[in-house]
Amino acid sequence: MARLTSRSEDYSKWYNELVIQTGMAENSKVRGCMVIKPYGYAIWEKMQAELDRMFKETGHQNAYFPLFVPKSLFEAEEKNAEGFAKECAVVTHYRLKNDPDNKGKLMVDPEAKLEEELVVRPTSEAIIWSTYKNWIQSYRDLPILINQWANVVRWEMRTRLFLRTAEFLWQEGHTAHATKEEAMQESRTMLDVYTRFVENFMAIPVVQGVKTPSERFAGAEETFCIEALMQDGKALQAGTSHFLGQNFAKAFDVKFASKEGTLDYVWATSWGVSTRLIGALIMTHSDDNGLVLPPNLAPIQVVIIPIYKNEEQQKAISETAVKLAEDLRKEGISVKFDDDDKVKPGWKFNEYELKGVPLRIAIGPRDLENGQVEMARRDTLEKSFEKLDGLPALIKSKLEEIQKSIFNRALDFRSENTREAGTYEEFKEILETKAGFIAAYWDGSAETEEKIKDETKATIRCIPFEDADLTGKFDLYSGKPAKFKVLYAKAY
Amino acid sequence: MARLTSRSEDYSKWYNELVIQTGMAENSKVRGCMVIKPYGYAIWEKMQAELDRMFKETGHQNAYFPLFVPKSLFEAEEKNAEGFAKECAVVTHYRLKNDPDNKGKLMVDPEAKLEEELVVRPTSEAIIWSTYKNWIQSYRDLPILINQWANVVRWEMRTRLFLRTAEFLWQEGHTAHATKEEAMQESRTMLDVYTRFVENFMAIPVVQGVKTPSERFAGAEETFCIEALMQDGKALQAGTSHFLGQNFAKAFDVKFASKEGTLDYVWATSWGVSTRLIGALIMTHSDDNGLVLPPNLAPIQVVIIPIYKNEEQQKAISETAVKLAEDLRKEGISVKFDDDDKVKPGWKFNEYELKGVPLRIAIGPRDLENGQVEMARRDTLEKSFEKLDGLPALIKSKLEEIQKSIFNRALDFRSENTREAGTYEEFKEILETKAGFIAAYWDGSAETEEKIKDETKATIRCIPFEDADLTGKFDLYSGKPAKFKVLYAKAY
Repeated sequence: MARLTSRSEDYSKWYNELVIQTGMAENSKVRGCMVIKPYGYAIWEKMQAELDRMFKETGHQNAYFPLFVPKSLFEAEEKNAEGFAKECAVVTHYRLKNDPDNKGKLMVDPEAKLEEELVVRPTSEAIIWSTYKNWIQSYRDLPILINQWANVVRWEMRTRLFLRTAEFLWQEGHTAHATKEEAMQESRTMLDVYTRFVENFMAIPVVQGVKTPSERFAGAEETFCIEALMQDGKALQAGTSHFLGQNFAKAFDVKFASKEGTLDYVWATSWGVSTRLIGALIMTHSDDNGLVLPPNLAPIQVVIIPIYKNEEQQKAISETAVKLAEDLRKEGISVKFDDDDKVKPGWKFNEYELKGVPLRIAIGPRDLENGQVEMARRDTLEKSFEKLDGLPALIKSKLEEIQKSIFNRALDFRSENTREAGTYEEFKEILETKAGFIAAYWDGSAETEEKIKDETKATIRCIPFEDADLTGKFDLYSGKPAKFKVLYAKAY
Repeated sequence: MARLTSRSEDYSKWYNELVIQTGMAENSKVRGCMVIKPYGYAIWEKMQAELDRMFKETGHQNAYFPLFVPKSLFEAEEKNAEGFAKECAVVTHYRLKNDPDNKGKLMVDPEAKLEEELVVRPTSEAIIWSTYKNWIQSYRDLPILINQWANVVRWEMRTRLFLRTAEFLWQEGHTAHATKEEAMQESRTMLDVYTRFVENFMAIPVVQGVKTPSERFAGAEETFCIEALMQDGKALQAGTSHFLGQNFAKAFDVKFASKEGTLDYVWATSWGVSTRLIGALIMTHSDDNGLVLPPNLAPIQVVIIPIYKNEEQQKAISETAVKLAEDLRKEGISVKFDDDDKVKPGWKFNEYELKGVPLRIAIGPRDLENGQVEMARRDTLEKSFEKLDGLPALIKSKLEEIQKSIFNRALDFRSENTREAGTYEEFKEILETKAGFIAAYWDGSAETEEKIKDETKATIRCIPFEDADLTGKFDLYSGKPAKFKVLYAKAY
């Protein structure tokens, strides 16, 4: 196994090597599409299970809508269509035929041209709202609270494993409501669900806020978001929840008879997180030795590695290890006893360190004599000897401690790397030297936002929800009176 | 709620009405694609959970491969390509642009034509084996035991909800092995997994067997299958497991260094079941009143409906019902207490009957006085009064009884509708009058098989695994000596 490039050497190379060497994902033969390998997919499955539980707990049901969006539906909501038209895969034919000029080869059959082209969904508002139209007649049909687990395609030109791929996996919630207040409440509720999930399960601290108009989802009235800070000082949008107003209801003519007998357009939200979160997970916690996984998401939480020189030792250690593994499983801990004798313990140590297994237990003959094991924490790389007696309870609490500890470490990192900039000079200096989040005052104009973006590549990540005192504050670029205090950063 | 058309009146209309009225699925605005609605999707989720557990128990891991297959990979395994070329959706462009002649409309951007067309996967052997090529060098890399949950697209011309749709959801297992024997064993193991799942969870009896060469999966050496019999006497292929030989390894040049140091092509299997199984579920158990669900797959296993005339009664009944629901949940039973006071109990009775909830518990004021409830079984429509005392245990055993009972009913139906035909005249008469499975001798020739298909629309569903005594037996069509005893039927 090759050593990883270090983060300080080349952060982006470190990231790619880590994804590939851990067996999480790799590039496929399809431009911009990745193969999610079993180890990466196992993490996604744990994420899905927890999110799905949280969605159901908040009253949502799952359903499934078509992969394809007929062009006429796709273009119905103009802003949404405009936002995605430039990057969508289009199905134009429904058949291949033998190529008469190339034996054994196929060609598109020109006679099988579709009357109307089909867009591979980049997001499903259009297809879903054309369906909701038939489901909604009166207020009794509302709210509709539906989520979908699906693949979507956005033809990105520059792709990176997990972070930006032409096809990715995600969930998308699509809800319909009788009132503006209720829809607004729903979009905030789901932002809170995402926040709890990302902070408590992925151990990634996030800032909640609202996007500026220019960074909104195409077709939304408001886009709420959670923003995380990566170790290289760049921000990553970890989830979004959109208040769509009546835009899609108007585009698809979805009205309902209210209790009062009026005929009103329906209010909408949509919200989603994707496999991109796995990129955020990697870039928040991992180090030069490899992945660091929060125990709540680790496919293997504890690995037990036996160290022996002869069969007799192997047998004795194996008995203890199997018993320990059983006891841990009873506590709901996922554990692997790696008794593969074709590779050396040292190789295994490296392998599980690379793969980010939170706790490693090594048992040698002398440990057995002393009724102890060697325990190593992946996050701090600390080692200690622990008594076998009472070990499951200790491991359980240690896993909880690791979960908290890596969250706190990431939170400290974010605090240290969130800076206030009073002047544009300061702003640019921070960006060039330290990166991170920059808190600054903004005049609320798209013009200022765009100029700063053009000159520095930093964007307004969000307007945080916390109230800011704007008295006597001015935009650091335009000098005009401040309307908001915002967070700037370069972003993934 | 409209009454369902009865099965005897119009079976196919009954099926469609049932799917739509129960809220399981509906046709979408995309030709041949369906919307799987929450109730249908909830059943699919239960199926997925159980299958996924069974796959993992047999050593498989999940992964995810790209939706698109570049044409050059698609055509690499010639038979596979030929089998699917006629029905595949083809992506030719990656961008839309504003249509200069139609304000607000979009058109395919001719400048965004792909150099190589992408096929939307109809099945993933090609993309997966082009990936496995890089994963496999030596026998140490084998076996690879991977499953994928995914959507696939086959451009079917005549579609029916769940049974045949252009896009459907499925799982596809793709495994790689060092020896022919191991691959053959894997394909049989997975057929057994499907059999256990379909029989024990879906309560659908199946016949295990092997397909004739003309009915094989395109690219397979052998296709094993499980075949079920629907209430209208037509067969339905419920799952297939393919022994692919070295076909895909040869097409993608996947070789491994064996223990002995030779360089050999890898052996392969693939196996899949899809949302089509939901169609089989409906057509096996349901009746003129609606869906009948096996308790193991029912999203709601027990519904409790209160019957009251005043608030005092409502309160007393509600207390008992809530307590009962809690006790049932402790037993792992999924229960809904429907205390919605906007609709009448009679309406609810119909609704849950239509939706196939296995057990209905009604509680009225007199029941409360007598310490009892009214229990109704969905499968037999039997009603009985049962003591509240000890009710959870009774309900638990009753659910198990229903699970067995509907399986046995389907098994009896299949026995009654599996007939031997000694002559072609008998064969045709059975098909015209009773349908069902017809057991008959076959000379093993594609010619006979095709002629019978052309003349009667019946196909050989499978050659069952059970040994048949062929001494002195002759093909009922050709009169030639029999090589196999097979099962014929008209099929979905």
